[in-house]
Order: sequence, then structure tokens, then C-alpha cells
Amino acid sequence: MPRPVTPLLAADIIIEPVSAPGRIILIERRNPPHGFALPGGFVDVGESLEQAAVREALEETAMEVTLKELLGCYSSPDRDPRGHTVSAVYIASGEGDPEARDDAKSLQLIDPKTPPQPLAFDHAQILQDYLHYLESGQVTPLR
Amino acid sequence: MPRPVTPLLAADIIIEPVSAPGRIILIERRNPPHGFALPGGFVDVGESLEQAAVREALEETAMEVTLKELLGCYSSPDRDPRGHTVSAVYIASGEGDPEARDDAKSLQLIDPKTPPQPLAFDHAQILQDYLHYLESGQVTPLR
Repeated sequence: MPRPVTPLLAADIIIEPVSAPGRIILIERRNPPHGFALPGGFVDVGESLEQAAVREALEETAMEVTLKELLGCYSSPDRDPRGHTVSAVYIASGEGDPEARDDAKSLQLIDPKTPPQPLAFDHAQILQDYLHYLESGQVTPLR
Repeated sequence: MPRPVTPLLAADIIIEPVSAPGRIILIERRNPPHGFALPGGFVDVGESLEQAAVREALEETAMEVTLKELLGCYSSPDRDPRGHTVSAVYIASGEGDPEARDDAKSLQLIDPKTPPQPLAFDHAQILQDYLHYLESGQVTPLR
């Protein structure tokens, strides 16, 4: 069987630092598309989504994270201007001192109700879904 | 940027036929790996996970489905012997008369507690998670 062509796969992480209750981490992207975004990146062949989320959090923010929930999967074909990329978005608690690394030009601890602008990709929608989760406990909205 | 190489992406569907409460649909696979499996298949570039799930259900079982929940994402590198494939698994209600089509050699309405053997991929684990969901309402186990 020839290898099928499917959308690219990424994992993004909503990191709740243990040291900053109510805040989450956004990075300022070094590469296009520019703007603020959740830490995350492409999943490698040979690693699970959960492993990719933990690895990307460490690479971009220096945080050691423990995954708590899968918030949802985001798969609209137009969500990434570079091409169709599906993201699994995890909520995690994070230990350590956040530090911008790798694809992160800078890093902010933000209140998810008042994020900096502009937000890259569909991360404004993801933050809305996260706020809904905080209020309701509901994950994985379908679209 | 060169296109990254990430795992392949699939959507699988636990179809609860409206006409057969307590049962779900498994197909007998026409192509390797052989055995019984949930209906599903690779996601096309340009369609969302939800669209892929609805399309694959129709193509393989002739059922018109309405998605209810994302049960979870299954991403272990060894879950598909053909290569690393990540699957988003949806629970859906299904209208119509199930009929084996496309990659489905035959089709069975089964009690998820006593599935036929052998089950392909990690679908035995997925059925265990589905039974846990039926008892607890909990989705998206992390691994």
C-alpha cells in the first residue's frame, strides 16, 4: 500500500504553572505565523501524542508537565496557514521556572480571559474552549 | 519550510444504531490487518476529523451518523502494524440499515462486552474504554 497522505499532526499544551494559579503560558512565536500561541509542535513518528506534548512543553518553555486532560482535537483545514494541521490540545500542570526556548522568542504568563494579541492559528478558539472547560468541566467540543 | 513528517491520521467510529440499542457495529476487514474492527479510515487533507468520521461511517457501513462524543485519541506507535497511525475515535448514533461496503468484507451488530475475535489494531482497548465511558461518562483516557 502506498503511504496515504493525511493532515500533519501536532500537539499543543495549556500549561498551568503550579507556581502561578489561574495563569497559563503563551509563547511569542519566533517563526511564521507570528503572534502569541500555546506551546506545541509537530508530533514525531514513533512518539505518542502524550509524549509529544510533554517534549514540546519542555523544549519551548523549560517546564516539566504532567498532562491532566485532553481538551480536544482541532482539525479545521484552514486553522494553520502553512497547511492542514490537526492538533491535539492537552491541559497540563507545570513545574519549574518558565523560560522561552527553541521556537519561543519570548514567553508570558497570562490570564486566559485577557490574552495578548494577536493570537496565532485558532488559539483564540482554544482559549475560549479552555475557559468553558474551567467553568463546566466539559472537554472535547465537536465541530 | 520542508513539510514535516508526522504520524498518519485516522478517524474511527463507534456507531450506536438507533434501531439496535446496546449494540455497536464492527466490520470484518477486507484488507490487512485482518480481523474485526471499528469502521474508520484515513483522514483526507482538507477535511476535519469530524467530517472524516462521518464519511468513513457512510462509506463502510451505509449508516448516516451524528457524532456525540470524542472518546479519545489513540497514538501508540505500535498500534497499527502498517506504520504509526494516530486515530481519533468518535461515538456516534447511526440511522439507517447497516450494510458492509468498501473496506468492510462483512459487518456485525455486536454487544461491546462480547466482541468477535480477533480484533485488529488496539480496538480491544478502545472497546474497553468505551465500556468504561458507558459506566462512568468519562472520555479521553490519557496514556
